[in-house]
Amino acid sequence: MKYTSKLIEEAVESLSLLPGIGRKSALRLALFLAQQDPQKAKQIGKSLIQMVDHLKQCKQCSAYSDDVICEICANPTRDQTTICVVESIRDLLAIEETMQYKGLYHVLGGLISPLDGIGPEHLTISGLVQRIKNNPIKELIMALRPCIEGDTTIYYVSKLVDPNDVKISLIARGVSFGAELEFADEMTISRSIATRSPYVLHDKSVV
Amino acid sequence: MKYTSKLIEEAVESLSLLPGIGRKSALRLALFLAQQDPQKAKQIGKSLIQMVDHLKQCKQCSAYSDDVICEICANPTRDQTTICVVESIRDLLAIEETMQYKGLYHVLGGLISPLDGIGPEHLTISGLVQRIKNNPIKELIMALRPCIEGDTTIYYVSKLVDPNDVKISLIARGVSFGAELEFADEMTISRSIATRSPYVLHDKSVV
Repeated sequence: MKYTSKLIEEAVESLSLLPGIGRKSALRLALFLAQQDPQKAKQIGKSLIQMVDHLKQCKQCSAYSDDVICEICANPTRDQTTICVVESIRDLLAIEETMQYKGLYHVLGGLISPLDGIGPEHLTISGLVQRIKNNPIKELIMALRPCIEGDTTIYYVSKLVDPNDVKISLIARGVSFGAELEFADEMTISRSIATRSPYVLHDKSVV
Repeated sequence: MKYTSKLIEEAVESLSLLPGIGRKSALRLALFLAQQDPQKAKQIGKSLIQMVDHLKQCKQCSAYSDDVICEICANPTRDQTTICVVESIRDLLAIEETMQYKGLYHVLGGLISPLDGIGPEHLTISGLVQRIKNNPIKELIMALRPCIEGDTTIYYVSKLVDPNDVKISLIARGVSFGAELEFADEMTISRSIATRSPYVLHDKSVV
């Protein structure tokens, strides 16, 4: 497509690098920014450049951070004895969103997947083991996707951790809140029956 | 939502200024850019800042341009006697996309709409009239949206132009190529019958 301006062409070109944004959407966005207050385009441009120039990964948990240690790890009011192990920062943010979990995190940066050539050495597992050794960690909550790669990773981590020192737990797998039982897959249903829990009237521990 | 990094928060904040992009999508885009090659984020950032810093409007046709006069107006191989009047630069680009039209353009920057408080003085109509006076224009093709505002604008422009000097034509309105007749609105169908054209076998003028 030919544009009347090289500047617009370049903006379209670069915006279409974003996932899920084709050239038509990129043009819509570029023209929107050209027509709007130029401050908006500048704010977007500057914030993106700032982000990639200064973003760090927390030395302890590998979450994105502005400092060497992230806000969560540096927060003394959080439970320093529990680590929730997640695949990605997005999973961390999803758990933070619930405002229920008050411990620390560890971002693996992926799951062990031999078929995709991802081994333990590509993940932050050695850092996790080191962290457990150097800190009074009592529990590891493995909050990984229910899939073969997730289970492989949980198994691998569990082999590296002394069960006498650290308790390893998994997040519950079962039928989602609000989901129709008839549409749940067999694996989910059979698992939710196998790991059923006793019904307790007025259970204070359930949120 | 709380993020582990202020830099990511700012990127999410600014990306969600874009139309059709909420906070969840903005987070997805920001994390994608943080994880990818930083050059991508910088390229997007720089191109947006460059665009709003240097983008001009063509002095003649009001299309976005890198110079005082845009590429189309400055192109001597284009038919200098025909002006296609469009509402916006997006309509201009849509017509250019067809690669069928070889004349010049004039971007009005909107349509006359008294209800929205948009009068002729908010559009580039006086520039168009001036342009017709100073140049050997023979035809104005009014390529405006078929709607009340479009028709008002066409009527207003036609009153300012001497019909002896300049022929005014409208783009054809009718059933779209590939559309189902049964789903077309009454206005479109009745208009397409009223403005029917004789069938000519092997008509060379039809593309």
